Amino acid sequence: MRPAKVPAAPAVSGPTRFDLTDFLTTRTAAVNAALAGFLPRPTAKPATIHRAMHYSLFAGGKRMRPALCLAAAAACGGEEQEAMPLACAVECIHTYSLIHDDLPSMDNDDYRRGKLTNHKVFGEGVAVLAGDALLTQAFEIVAQARGWPRYAHGQLVLEVARASGSLQLIAGQVADLEGEGKKISAAQLRYIHERKTSALLCCSTRLGGMSANCTPAQLAALTDFGYHVGLAFQIIDDILDVTQTSEQLGKTAGKDTAAQKATYPAIIGLEKSRKIAAKLTERAFGALQPFRGRAVALEALATYLLERNK
Amino acid sequence: MRPAKVPAAPAVSGPTRFDLTDFLTTRTAAVNAALAGFLPRPTAKPATIHRAMHYSLFAGGKRMRPALCLAAAAACGGEEQEAMPLACAVECIHTYSLIHDDLPSMDNDDYRRGKLTNHKVFGEGVAVLAGDALLTQAFEIVAQARGWPRYAHGQLVLEVARASGSLQLIAGQVADLEGEGKKISAAQLRYIHERKTSALLCCSTRLGGMSANCTPAQLAALTDFGYHVGLAFQIIDDILDVTQTSEQLGKTAGKDTAAQKATYPAIIGLEKSRKIAAKLTERAFGALQPFRGRAVALEALATYLLERNK
Repeated sequence: MRPAKVPAAPAVSGPTRFDLTDFLTTRTAAVNAALAGFLPRPTAKPATIHRAMHYSLFAGGKRMRPALCLAAAAACGGEEQEAMPLACAVECIHTYSLIHDDLPSMDNDDYRRGKLTNHKVFGEGVAVLAGDALLTQAFEIVAQARGWPRYAHGQLVLEVARASGSLQLIAGQVADLEGEGKKISAAQLRYIHERKTSALLCCSTRLGGMSANCTPAQLAALTDFGYHVGLAFQIIDDILDVTQTSEQLGKTAGKDTAAQKATYPAIIGLEKSRKIAAKLTERAFGALQPFRGRAVALEALATYLLERNK
Repeated sequence: MRPAKVPAAPAVSGPTRFDLTDFLTTRTAAVNAALAGFLPRPTAKPATIHRAMHYSLFAGGKRMRPALCLAAAAACGGEEQEAMPLACAVECIHTYSLIHDDLPSMDNDDYRRGKLTNHKVFGEGVAVLAGDALLTQAFEIVAQARGWPRYAHGQLVLEVARASGSLQLIAGQVADLEGEGKKISAAQLRYIHERKTSALLCCSTRLGGMSANCTPAQLAALTDFGYHVGLAFQIIDDILDVTQTSEQLGKTAGKDTAAQKATYPAIIGLEKSRKIAAKLTERAFGALQPFRGRAVALEALATYLLERNK
């Protein structure tokens, strides 16, 4: 295995020894530059669609999924630049899903990350197509990643397609839409969260490992980690939706309640939700044991996702 | 090269010697069976999305793109079952593009192939997601195709993604939307047709060749053929829109005119449009010369596409 390229990543474990702010700043810049390199320029003909794609892709997203992908690659001793195409592909998928979820026929949201949603700026037709284009772009980017004998392009494409497909990401959105205004159980809510959020986060960490030609044991650990971090992430999202203002979130707060969507706080209460999120994060930490201190970036990200306030 | 599996395909050329009806009947059945095998069952949870995907995918499409893909594989001496995943993937892309094009925010169509459009049955939100799911499914299927050293999965995915992306298929739809009600030139209309129709037809024949591990010369010939057949196909579509009734077409006739969309007949007249379509088909025939009589199915398809009345 080649040495990790994560700067300032000490060999000993512990998020306190790791400069996450620096990690996120540098990686966000690198991911943005890579994304800009993969996409046609905003002036490419027809300009409307490319401006719409750039608008949402560069709307200030936190790049959490790319960060998890790059951090997973580093944990496995891989080079970040080989994980970069996969990190970018996952971000394209995430952005497409937000554009479509915000449409009037779905969540009907006017603001996202403090800016008008795609369809409010470009109209519904173009917003649908911009989402389609980003989804398609994701696979074009995966096709340009480095493959290994164990993780060849067929495997990488299958990984992204399954996590984003009708049994995972899209299944979550459908179940979410269908659950609106209905009384659903904690188990059903978990079904939604697993698919709507956990699937793509888990895919991000797995792809990072694959880009580093990880061992099957490492891949299993990353899967376990990504699953639990993903669930914790969504519970925190639910909590923030009821405890923060729209200004703090950069998107409409309290809209889960307004749309009569089931959330963890609504079903089991705020305090119990916080405890479950902490417990899931603990499980995620446990999954990183096999990396013996090389997964500092992943640990720091998991802690940050639990403790964030937006 | 292995022998072609096309039954009743004589070694000498000429569409008159080829039973196209039999070819289309048997291949449509084979494609439908393969598609059903690739997709989750309509009862898979959440059932709504899978029913919506099946509804449009099995709405009686003519499977022209899969037929072109399989015929191209045969022309290169390949086995049809190795082209089948790629043929199915292209059909998933085609169906997704129809579902999204029919949305109220785009062409706002109520009928397609004589049946209610997806959003009229399942609602707009699910229709958007069903399109997304079929697009994603296409790449999941490509990942399961057979790769060759020259045409590995990275290459196959790139081929499908580029033909379907923001510079081709989606560019065509955007330009089409933006051209509504405007006076556009024949050159601009050709730009739209090349992207909206020709790109995916051309991709279909190229993928067929790739599945047969074709030579670069064969791939160039299939590209030339697909491009010209694609343009002819769309001009015929334009002509049928003004000359046939809704009942004959199974979709709303005269809607290009109603939507003030530019069409070949509107810009250069009906007779001249027919002549151009015939000329393009002739060019497509010319492109098949290198196959020396092995491209009988492709020739028969090109003739059929020119002479069809729906």
